[in-house]
Amino acid sequence: MAYVTSSLIQLANLSAVRIKARGMSIGRAVDVAQIISRKTENAGYIIGEIKIDSEVLESKDGKSRNVSTIDIEVKRK
Amino acid sequence: MAYVTSSLIQLANLSAVRIKARGMSIGRAVDVAQIISRKTENAGYIIGEIKIDSEVLESKDGKSRNVSTIDIEVKRK
Repeated sequence: MAYVTSSLIQLANLSAVRIKARGMSIGRAVDVAQIISRKTENAGYIIGEIKIDSEVLESKDGKSRNVSTIDIEVKRK
Repeated sequence: MAYVTSSLIQLANLSAVRIKARGMSIGRAVDVAQIISRKTENAGYIIGEIKIDSEVLESKDGKSRNVSTIDIEVKRK
């Protein structure tokens, strides 16, 4: 819920926010975007562009690994 | 990798596939889509439309819960 609150505070001043996550947190980013667009249905925030990508990160054993990322835009209608 | 193989087999016959996931599996769906678009860069598959939504499911304790969903299109260029 901290991310939801934080996004809503930003949306009070901006016309759009982008929620970004990497790896295991991707599901949570989708949850946050959904909660905002569902709870603020009357306030008029909607899901905008969604992008997925991958980043190369170095793991603890020194090998490079591909990690998926997501970028969800939430904006005013 | 089973989902990657399965998607590639379908893409051999169809011009697009949709990878869908719910809840905790959302991250894996993004991984599958990324692996396909990265590995088949020369074969020309790209990420198409991405949709996120939520579904109401009944949990074990009988309460209804909102679960986030994702739907990723992978298509021929």
